[in-house]
Amino acid sequence: MDHEVVGCFVLLVIITLLSVVQNAFFASKVELESKSYTSKTFQRAGPSAFERVFTANQNCRDAYPTFLAVLWCAGLLCSQAPAAFAGLIYLFVRQKYFVGYMGERTQSTPGYIFGKRIILFLFLMSVAGVLNYYLVLFFGSDFEMYIKTITSTISPLLLIP
Amino acid sequence: MDHEVVGCFVLLVIITLLSVVQNAFFASKVELESKSYTSKTFQRAGPSAFERVFTANQNCRDAYPTFLAVLWCAGLLCSQAPAAFAGLIYLFVRQKYFVGYMGERTQSTPGYIFGKRIILFLFLMSVAGVLNYYLVLFFGSDFEMYIKTITSTISPLLLIP
Amino acid sequence: MDHEVVGCFVLLVIITLLSVVQNAFFASKVELESKSYTSKTFQRAGPSAFERVFTANQNCRDAYPTFLAVLWCAGLLCSQAPAAFAGLIYLFVRQKYFVGYMGERTQSTPGYIFGKRIILFLFLMSVAGVLNYYLVLFFGSDFEMYIKTITSTISPLLLIP
Repeated sequence: MDHEVVGCFVLLVIITLLSVVQNAFFASKVELESKSYTSKTFQRAGPSAFERVFTANQNCRDAYPTFLAVLWCAGLLCSQAPAAFAGLIYLFVRQKYFVGYMGERTQSTPGYIFGKRIILFLFLMSVAGVLNYYLVLFFGSDFEMYIKTITSTISPLLLIP
Repeated sequence: MDHEVVGCFVLLVIITLLSVVQNAFFASKVELESKSYTSKTFQRAGPSAFERVFTANQNCRDAYPTFLAVLWCAGLLCSQAPAAFAGLIYLFVRQKYFVGYMGERTQSTPGYIFGKRIILFLFLMSVAGVLNYYLVLFFGSDFEMYIKTITSTISPLLLIP
Repeated sequence: MDHEVVGCFVLLVIITLLSVVQNAFFASKVELESKSYTSKTFQRAGPSAFERVFTANQNCRDAYPTFLAVLWCAGLLCSQAPAAFAGLIYLFVRQKYFVGYMGERTQSTPGYIFGKRIILFLFLMSVAGVLNYYLVLFFGSDFEMYIKTITSTISPLLLIP
């Protein structure tokens, strides 16, 4: 593809590749636990350790396409760098969620949803991008610069735990 | 990105964002049910209400990447507006499927697959787009206008239940 | 979209469409098994045949977004033809995995992960593409041709079982 076009999404590609590495890490953990387990019996519902890692992996997998969709929509329509930054923080949150789920000893587990704030941020960025597109189309007024400045300013706030 | 390029997929982005909102709705339902449940015990296999919402969510999640893939392929290669329209109807079908699955009181549940017709329509649109690309490449004859007219004409038929 | 731009990803679209057909095949198998089963009782955990096909489908679905992500990243940033070729082989491996999982009579099942080598190949292609982008940006030296030649040469090695 053209070098300039690639420049529009190269950061998003990097985040996507990092998320793939993380997925591979999660999958290897499941593989490890299931190997020590499926030798005995076949069914999914199993001992606590395997069940835990399986559920944690499942929850991460469930949210993965949604994350990729908003990441790319936000990056392509609005601003690339803040979207990639938010994606990076999401990967950290996911790592923490997965490890926290596995290491959980008490009965209370983390909920099904995680990284709500980051997904919301990426979603709002996408909406801002779509709105801006229609503003340009109908009124000819381009607020892209303002939106980019605002998102770049807000994105560090995602670091607050 | 360039304003004109964005115009090629802005409707698809809107549908994707709507599907993300729906995913968030599904996830919040699962979160709600699991919270009232995981306080007692850890395992997944649970009472009917949680099991129902969990399975409904799972089935929707399973089909989600496939839906996104055909939506974007159809929108980019063939015609954007009919693809976005079909995507919108898919979201309605999915909502109906999810609510129907949850509210089900009898033993018979809706099947694993839903929205077959819409996925098929988007798939055929993508195939038509690919075929058209190779027709242009090898024979120089562009049927894009015909395909766009046909798909725009056919797409309202998806409204028939 | 522009004809030339479409040419940059038409092979990837074909592979994606083939994977959608395969997904539909997997889903129909699950539908078939679940119909002969859910008539009796509601829960997921069931007899061996349904459990097998359900787990095989689940494992394939879990890896699907990851596969799509690396396929498209490798195809867009590096080289289209080898990426599409690797994707095609992945589909064969997935088919073999699914059929193998279903037909399994002994207690030992194939692991959770499959097609590791192909995902790794696509991942390395993406990384090479990203590195090449930054080399062009900072040093102005374009190794795209070399990378394309190398990946085209290596990709047949994926055929070795």
